[in-house]
Amino acid sequence: MIALQAIEFGAVVAFAIYGILLASRKQMDFVGLFAVASAVAFGGGTIRDLCLDRTPLFWIENSYYTIVVFGLALIGALAPQLMLRLEKYLALPDALGLGLFTVVGTGYALELGTPLFVSALIGVMTGAFGGVIADVICNELPSIFRPAPLYASCSFAGAWVYIAGVEWGWEPSLTLALSLGTVVFFRLASIKWNWRLPSVNHPGND
Amino acid sequence: MIALQAIEFGAVVAFAIYGILLASRKQMDFVGLFAVASAVAFGGGTIRDLCLDRTPLFWIENSYYTIVVFGLALIGALAPQLMLRLEKYLALPDALGLGLFTVVGTGYALELGTPLFVSALIGVMTGAFGGVIADVICNELPSIFRPAPLYASCSFAGAWVYIAGVEWGWEPSLTLALSLGTVVFFRLASIKWNWRLPSVNHPGND
Amino acid sequence: MIALQAIEFGAVVAFAIYGILLASRKQMDFVGLFAVASAVAFGGGTIRDLCLDRTPLFWIENSYYTIVVFGLALIGALAPQLMLRLEKYLALPDALGLGLFTVVGTGYALELGTPLFVSALIGVMTGAFGGVIADVICNELPSIFRPAPLYASCSFAGAWVYIAGVEWGWEPSLTLALSLGTVVFFRLASIKWNWRLPSVNHPGND
Repeated sequence: MIALQAIEFGAVVAFAIYGILLASRKQMDFVGLFAVASAVAFGGGTIRDLCLDRTPLFWIENSYYTIVVFGLALIGALAPQLMLRLEKYLALPDALGLGLFTVVGTGYALELGTPLFVSALIGVMTGAFGGVIADVICNELPSIFRPAPLYASCSFAGAWVYIAGVEWGWEPSLTLALSLGTVVFFRLASIKWNWRLPSVNHPGND
Repeated sequence: MIALQAIEFGAVVAFAIYGILLASRKQMDFVGLFAVASAVAFGGGTIRDLCLDRTPLFWIENSYYTIVVFGLALIGALAPQLMLRLEKYLALPDALGLGLFTVVGTGYALELGTPLFVSALIGVMTGAFGGVIADVICNELPSIFRPAPLYASCSFAGAWVYIAGVEWGWEPSLTLALSLGTVVFFRLASIKWNWRLPSVNHPGND
Repeated sequence: MIALQAIEFGAVVAFAIYGILLASRKQMDFVGLFAVASAVAFGGGTIRDLCLDRTPLFWIENSYYTIVVFGLALIGALAPQLMLRLEKYLALPDALGLGLFTVVGTGYALELGTPLFVSALIGVMTGAFGGVIADVICNELPSIFRPAPLYASCSFAGAWVYIAGVEWGWEPSLTLALSLGTVVFFRLASIKWNWRLPSVNHPGND
């Protein structure tokens, strides 16, 4: 479980840095950096906890997460060069974060007896919703809805691997490794080989 | 009650198709189509359930709704022409959906002892919020806030008819028929004769 | 407590008028005015109540608030000049509203045993989130994230004064006065002397 905590911590950090970079591209101030970083890092898990009626929210329970994100936003405001240099190392922690949040979200939903398909969706929401909220706040068309390397789809695939493991009684650590690995592999492969879903060509586009 | 279930099902389908058309006009991919369709079909009811602290959320309870919306988004991605051809038949199911969600939302709120005016507002939110969320996700100024054929206003009128029926002890099926009919009639009439509220002319517009 | 109720009422009114002016600048109709006014006046408290799992929501409990906001939106639609003339008197009630919502939000969080830092954040969210939601609905980059006179920062400072008072056992009315006064003083001073946080200069801005 130490490993799981460490991965979750890494996920929060990676997502927060993603948010800070997004906000600083919009020339926001420190308040904006912290708010967008929090939206990315805590948004998906908050929606999950609200939908499943879990209390307290995960960032209220692990309140030091908010202090870490606050510190990262401070660094982002005071030393933007440093934050930018981190950008190129973000793909792996970001993929791990997506995978971990997916697995945790799917797992919580299954525990509460949620039907399988909905559990997979809640896993995807947990992993991907923070980025959507941040894009909406930053007044952008959410990037995961546009043709780009696969993101939500990798999360969806991993959620089903996790569900298969739970339903068919695999060893828990194997289930965790396989589902996390699925998300991370597909996400990194999508970036490397530019896998993407086609844009829908609306015949009556105006 | 079979009738009510059928109408709710029709409402979810109509709202989902509305979302799919909206997303495909933005040239999103399948993930975007499914996400926007879900926002329109489930957004209003989710806000209602969260505000009234009802669990589980209606789309978790009726989990096959999510599978239906997933299937519609698949059709929308693979056969956009087909979806477009459905567009002109949407006015009636959309009006029915607005009416049904209004009535259900108002009814749930009243049952929990919510004051009348707030119950009417929750009815309107249930009916109209999904479209607002979808417009916000799609980075549009929500259409129901701009001068256009009446939408939220029809819902508001129907909510009060429903409240009158409950307060004055009308026969339940009569209350349902009258309130639903009010929303559908006003909505279709507003489209046909282009009834709209005036835009507020802010004297200091910049 | 009569005083506290009166201040909260003033805060709701000030925030609603802010929303009405924002919506009318966007040339929305009455529905838009009411919706944006409600988002500003009720948004922050709703997020707080959802995060802390408090029921019923504060605007369901004090349901006459919704009627007051409805009435203000009606005035805004019928007599936009009148509303505009109020604008220049809004700074004080707006600052009082920010302060009061901050204090109330922080207080509710502390009562539920929430860690101090998170309690301060929930105070800031209660005070400032309504404006963010309204900006997002109106398709604007939220103004509090851009360099402008301090807003969320004043709320954050006041939240910590309140926490200090509770932790160190000050007289409750003194704690209230000092924390409210901190927010109001810093907010009005920031407007007067144009105090602001610097924009983060992202080195790789595109």
